[in-house]
Amino acid sequence: MLNDKLVQAYQTYRMKLRAYRFAEYLISWDSETEAPVGCFDVRSQMVGVLSSESFKLMTCQDTVDMINELYANLNELDELLQIEIKHAKKSLDKLTKIPEDEYVSYMELLSKSSLVWANAKKNNDFASFEPTLTKIVEFNQKMMKYLETDTLKGYDTLLDEYEEGATQVVYDEFFDTLKKELVPFAKKVCSTKTNYHPLKETTYPKEKQELLTKYFVNELGLDPNYTVVKTSEHPFTSGFGSTDVRITTHYYEDNLLSNIYSVIHEGGHAIYELQCGSHLEETLLGGGSTMAMHESQSRFFENIIGRSYPFIEKHYPKIKSLFEEELDGITMEDFYFNCNEAKMSFIRIEADELTYPIHIMIRYDIEKELMSGKLQVKDLPARWNELVKDYLGLDVPSDTVGVLQDVHWSGGSFGYFPTYAYGSAIAAQLYYAMKKEFDVTEDIKHNSLKKVKEYLKENVHQYGQTKLPQEMLLKATGEKFNPKYYIEYLKEKYTKLYNL
Amino acid sequence: MLNDKLVQAYQTYRMKLRAYRFAEYLISWDSETEAPVGCFDVRSQMVGVLSSESFKLMTCQDTVDMINELYANLNELDELLQIEIKHAKKSLDKLTKIPEDEYVSYMELLSKSSLVWANAKKNNDFASFEPTLTKIVEFNQKMMKYLETDTLKGYDTLLDEYEEGATQVVYDEFFDTLKKELVPFAKKVCSTKTNYHPLKETTYPKEKQELLTKYFVNELGLDPNYTVVKTSEHPFTSGFGSTDVRITTHYYEDNLLSNIYSVIHEGGHAIYELQCGSHLEETLLGGGSTMAMHESQSRFFENIIGRSYPFIEKHYPKIKSLFEEELDGITMEDFYFNCNEAKMSFIRIEADELTYPIHIMIRYDIEKELMSGKLQVKDLPARWNELVKDYLGLDVPSDTVGVLQDVHWSGGSFGYFPTYAYGSAIAAQLYYAMKKEFDVTEDIKHNSLKKVKEYLKENVHQYGQTKLPQEMLLKATGEKFNPKYYIEYLKEKYTKLYNL
Repeated sequence: MLNDKLVQAYQTYRMKLRAYRFAEYLISWDSETEAPVGCFDVRSQMVGVLSSESFKLMTCQDTVDMINELYANLNELDELLQIEIKHAKKSLDKLTKIPEDEYVSYMELLSKSSLVWANAKKNNDFASFEPTLTKIVEFNQKMMKYLETDTLKGYDTLLDEYEEGATQVVYDEFFDTLKKELVPFAKKVCSTKTNYHPLKETTYPKEKQELLTKYFVNELGLDPNYTVVKTSEHPFTSGFGSTDVRITTHYYEDNLLSNIYSVIHEGGHAIYELQCGSHLEETLLGGGSTMAMHESQSRFFENIIGRSYPFIEKHYPKIKSLFEEELDGITMEDFYFNCNEAKMSFIRIEADELTYPIHIMIRYDIEKELMSGKLQVKDLPARWNELVKDYLGLDVPSDTVGVLQDVHWSGGSFGYFPTYAYGSAIAAQLYYAMKKEFDVTEDIKHNSLKKVKEYLKENVHQYGQTKLPQEMLLKATGEKFNPKYYIEYLKEKYTKLYNL
Repeated sequence: MLNDKLVQAYQTYRMKLRAYRFAEYLISWDSETEAPVGCFDVRSQMVGVLSSESFKLMTCQDTVDMINELYANLNELDELLQIEIKHAKKSLDKLTKIPEDEYVSYMELLSKSSLVWANAKKNNDFASFEPTLTKIVEFNQKMMKYLETDTLKGYDTLLDEYEEGATQVVYDEFFDTLKKELVPFAKKVCSTKTNYHPLKETTYPKEKQELLTKYFVNELGLDPNYTVVKTSEHPFTSGFGSTDVRITTHYYEDNLLSNIYSVIHEGGHAIYELQCGSHLEETLLGGGSTMAMHESQSRFFENIIGRSYPFIEKHYPKIKSLFEEELDGITMEDFYFNCNEAKMSFIRIEADELTYPIHIMIRYDIEKELMSGKLQVKDLPARWNELVKDYLGLDVPSDTVGVLQDVHWSGGSFGYFPTYAYGSAIAAQLYYAMKKEFDVTEDIKHNSLKKVKEYLKENVHQYGQTKLPQEMLLKATGEKFNPKYYIEYLKEKYTKLYNL
């Protein structure tokens, strides 16, 4: 009887929390897509009040007592509620482990740091960012101590913030494999000449690109009853439950591919959200399992499906019909090559599918060294340039396109980067398992991806946050995470493409 | 010292309330303009929780005590705060005067009534709406008793809900004047033949209408740094402070004028919000003074400016350049006539500037009779048809285009209608005062309405909710509300137009 009341109290609490999150979701969507620029001073005040209300709700003594009592009686709860309470308990414990004053001053630091970083990047002036970054690193080093548990120590505590269950043991094996297998292969690919025609440097009118957006949104089967598509500076996906999922894209008139692959990438995120089990709608367990799992789905659709030969073979006629003049002389094979061409380059976010994980590998190595204290912030640029030379074979001309290129560290995100590559590798492992069950090429060419989506729903999407990637992988593919599929996939694809 | 603490507590309270209102504002904007249809079940739950949180905040014992204590020490507060506390006290008193159980069951009734009304309207079946409307009327009759004060009795208590300071004494004089002066004049106008060419029944493509929207938004000087323009089923304006104001329009391809005048009408509302004094930004006193004052501004821009000869003379070349073929053979004079043509008609929202107030007059008469108990709900259609015959000279063919046409009564809004006509008349009074100070025609034709907007900012907009219409009118025009200007304006305009 006690628990009935407690469970009801929890349900009321959860509903309130969902309402705050809903408001935050819409405000942030509006901010990114259409709010007038002049409103942000007032808006940030309002957001501040709402965040503080929801923070109070989550951390007030009533909530703490309620979560602790439910946690103490975990076995009496139904399965879903057990998972929710475990999540809630874990978050609460974290909040109580970090001394409030240190946390507050860290937040103040972060509120200014991204501007410091942006200026440093703009002016190619690492020195101006160094003091700030040093403080951020120091806080994270302290945080590693605060967050330590019996099973998580050091950098693992940070990795766990972004990807529960992925530790250095997992990532080390993964990135070691990449280092051994992928780096030499990528070097070989990037030095191979081909005879394909490059896309023309011309104008690809926005109006026609918009028609392609509609076309691909429809081809991916994103139900307009539950989906909104809009534009923003940087494409992203935002979802509130499986009935309200929104994606954005961005149009560059000198680049035909950017919009296409933004739509397919964000479309992959959206499919994940849309296919989440409706039994999770009223819980806090909806959405994606982890960052890597979410990224695995966007990259699966963008790269493994969207940049595949059969996908391009199927959709190139449509693309060509819209851009007849602009694509004059470009065969389907040329187009396929342009969607996949590999190049050693400086900028992570512009990297192709093959070299992308090498960029991540470099960041992972550096984060480990920084967090262990082996590397000092002042030595970061030199170390960065050394690793870029080693693995990408390039001489970094400036920190702007080197160590200062990404926003993550200025926001205190250490442990985030590896999830990008991990996600790609998870996608490949799922792909190989899927291929054993049905003909993926056939599904791309003649079945509107129905089986692909059904497979992912069944094995991943329906579970929301109730299972971790390793558990889903084991169930779906018969083994835990294994990077060999990712290597195999990339080697097979690029060997063929470059006729090695 | 006590008051310092109290004032701080009030400021914290106010900030929270503003944050809830901000969330409600954005959610409702999103709902009307782009939320996917499938999300509304979840959304209404979330909105329910947020509304209930803000309702609790406004009515909890702490708030009641705080408002009462501040009210008891009113003289010690600064001027703005005094006004805010008076508003808050008035709202609180109202909430406590209506027995909670009656209020709750009334809200339940209203949550279903608009659907009952919509079906009745669709099926021309007043009988099916009668029981619901009877209950709504009965509640409002009881509410009149609950809300009675020393100065407000009967229907005045309801009028006060929508337009503080406007009582039956004010409205009776107004509508009596209309009855005596306007009705016979309108009948004469509507029976006068003219030789102007009607606009062609053709397609006015949406893409070109969109260019006109941009054109008029720019001509009205709506600053894109603080304004958003979008589409929705029914055009509306929504604002959160003077830095975030949003309007919508709607495109009908068989109607060129609808969009133009929606944009100018909503633009008028937007200018009011945008020009509110920035000293009110952090208070609860921003936005428009009353419903009638807000409507006076939209109608001022839509009708007095937007449908004026000089405005059309100035902008017709632009309109014609976009719709050369569609407007072939239509002179500027023809176009001006089409923007203003008067016709006795059944539907209020489609009525022209001249006959519109007659529609309101009929509703005002009926509301008075209903609320006093003189008229029974069952006799409503007959009474409606009788008044339409008397004042518009028309035989109502069905309740669908008669007594069932408007949503207001199904939502319990008695006392709302008169503000529409009152607003138009306020606009005319301001117009005559303005004309004494500068050349409005010149301002329309050569000065982008700068003086007009400056005048309205100075005399109305800057004050937000700190002054009532009567006070602003007295200060700006030298007299209290006087309907003669409205009559004079309409007579002058239509005498010329119809060459009487």
